[in-house]
Amino acid sequence: MGSMEKGRTIVGWAATDPSGVLAPQTFTLRNTGPEDVFIKVMCCGICHTDIHQIKNHLGMSRYPMVPGHEMVGEVLEVGSEVTKFKTGDIVGVGLLVGCCRSCRACDADIEQYCNKKIWSYNDVYTDGNPTQGGFAESMIVDQKFVVKIPEGMSPEQAAPLLCAGVTVYSPLNHFGLKKSGLKGAILGLGGVGHMGVKISKAMGHHVTVISSSDKKKVEALDHLGADEYLVSSDSSTMEQAADSFDYIIDTVPVNHPLEPYLSLLKVDGKLILMGVINTPLQFISPMVMLGRKVITGSFIGSMKETEEMLEFCKDEGLSSMIEVVKMDYVNTAFERLEKNDVRYRFVVDVAGSDLQQQ
Amino acid sequence: MGSMEKGRTIVGWAATDPSGVLAPQTFTLRNTGPEDVFIKVMCCGICHTDIHQIKNHLGMSRYPMVPGHEMVGEVLEVGSEVTKFKTGDIVGVGLLVGCCRSCRACDADIEQYCNKKIWSYNDVYTDGNPTQGGFAESMIVDQKFVVKIPEGMSPEQAAPLLCAGVTVYSPLNHFGLKKSGLKGAILGLGGVGHMGVKISKAMGHHVTVISSSDKKKVEALDHLGADEYLVSSDSSTMEQAADSFDYIIDTVPVNHPLEPYLSLLKVDGKLILMGVINTPLQFISPMVMLGRKVITGSFIGSMKETEEMLEFCKDEGLSSMIEVVKMDYVNTAFERLEKNDVRYRFVVDVAGSDLQQQ
Repeated sequence: MGSMEKGRTIVGWAATDPSGVLAPQTFTLRNTGPEDVFIKVMCCGICHTDIHQIKNHLGMSRYPMVPGHEMVGEVLEVGSEVTKFKTGDIVGVGLLVGCCRSCRACDADIEQYCNKKIWSYNDVYTDGNPTQGGFAESMIVDQKFVVKIPEGMSPEQAAPLLCAGVTVYSPLNHFGLKKSGLKGAILGLGGVGHMGVKISKAMGHHVTVISSSDKKKVEALDHLGADEYLVSSDSSTMEQAADSFDYIIDTVPVNHPLEPYLSLLKVDGKLILMGVINTPLQFISPMVMLGRKVITGSFIGSMKETEEMLEFCKDEGLSSMIEVVKMDYVNTAFERLEKNDVRYRFVVDVAGSDLQQQ
Repeated sequence: MGSMEKGRTIVGWAATDPSGVLAPQTFTLRNTGPEDVFIKVMCCGICHTDIHQIKNHLGMSRYPMVPGHEMVGEVLEVGSEVTKFKTGDIVGVGLLVGCCRSCRACDADIEQYCNKKIWSYNDVYTDGNPTQGGFAESMIVDQKFVVKIPEGMSPEQAAPLLCAGVTVYSPLNHFGLKKSGLKGAILGLGGVGHMGVKISKAMGHHVTVISSSDKKKVEALDHLGADEYLVSSDSSTMEQAADSFDYIIDTVPVNHPLEPYLSLLKVDGKLILMGVINTPLQFISPMVMLGRKVITGSFIGSMKETEEMLEFCKDEGLSSMIEVVKMDYVNTAFERLEKNDVRYRFVVDVAGSDLQQQ
């Protein structure tokens, strides 16, 4: 692990330019500070956002960049003031590793909305060094941004919960939808969408998957346990379903019309956007006014909600549906994810891979 | 009042084509049914929506049409099963005169969202006859859609509360904003906007008026009691005001960008649309996601909220700011309203006008 003077030298898989191809690189992790947890990475999920980052789709990428923000690992060392974790614990790290701790959002324990939040990679830490993500030998993270993985949950299946899982759990929790008897819909069946079906079902909802074709019908109904399946291009069934949903979780990451989905909502229904779409979405005001409907969105979840969500998944026996790959497959996995060719999340077995070998 | 066999023949001012010019017409009101309240019209406010209706802007106008949905009058007769009102009561009627009474919205006492609601004019009543509004000698209305005007409130000042007043009260009440200490903004200072300033102030909020120019600054601050005034075209003060509002009530009735206003909202802030705009409004999803912001809208308010709002206005000593005119001025008033040349609502003194005389 290299010299301890200026930090630990470790290996991670980094993109070095907007081609987004990952390859082994060495870089330095800071030494374990008083509040830090030093974690050996076991596995890390691949999220669609990682593609935007490694390929500089948002114009804000800094290279070399080690992506990965659904990391599960084992605690190897803790700082002198760490109270929440001990060596040997299995823990997780998600999209954030820092926040200001003094703004309204931080005070309200919704640090994901802090304007000074620090992303777990492609950002700069408080010490001025770049943050690097989970496709690496190890990570060092402030204890506030580390969660315990409940006992009995497999690390690989827990990994996608740290982003995809809490991303759907948080709005259901926040907008008063964590109660049984509701009728919900999940628009789009990718990494976030499949967790949406599972979490909504576990909350006691009647869950409909809405998709542009019937290709995923059998999977949605038979494998994921959805109650109904609606093809958005079938106008007659869409009309029959008008005014019937309490909420729609819209995971579609590209521009699409909102009005067909606003029509599906009951009075006071909520359209919750999860996809980062940088071209204008459109609607006409009577579509929201005449049913007091809500268009909103949500961004991951708080650390508190992440802990709650993990306990909820443990209690309900929920897990993600994943395809586990080794690190030398990661570039192929990214290519397949871009084509939506995965059921439903890739998880890289980092500890079981030879990180030096491309 | 004519023959009682098939109903009462009365005079009202009607538009007969999309020119929207009103002129005296006779028409028939049904006789007083068991649940009906027969009301002599005292006065009636002029709302911007009336223009859309008389000029067929929405393509759904039926002529002849007597507009007017902010009516205050005196009860002349009540049906055998009317329990809420008696002869001599001063009462009000707003935008609705009927609903299905059995849907989810009706069961929840939010009949304004009933899909079978009946508008107080330009609609068809349960007996198959057209409904006609408040610019007439009298109205006959089911008791469910009649409210008592609190004692001591002037009929002319009460009239605009029945639409403009409840239109701002309802979303503040529904979205959990009827509590002191919030920071709110009112975008657009017309009939609804000026009631927004007064009602928000009375709820204990810090209230900013946002307008496209500084023309209304003195009025907003000195006459209406707003705390601050923000010119939307002044980018530096708009930037200073970023992330500072709990809600914005957006009364602008024409297409406009939403993003400058979404930027002004705090985390969990709400942009509440009040203007019927039939061309697409636009936003990008990160603008809502990265602060869990809400875009919503609201449509008048329930009868229950109308009663609550009137009591609230009475308790807080609130009234509307109006210009009272006679019926022979109504066409001029509509012209001036189209140019936004009124502070802030026209109210027609119907009982004090000679309705036969053009």
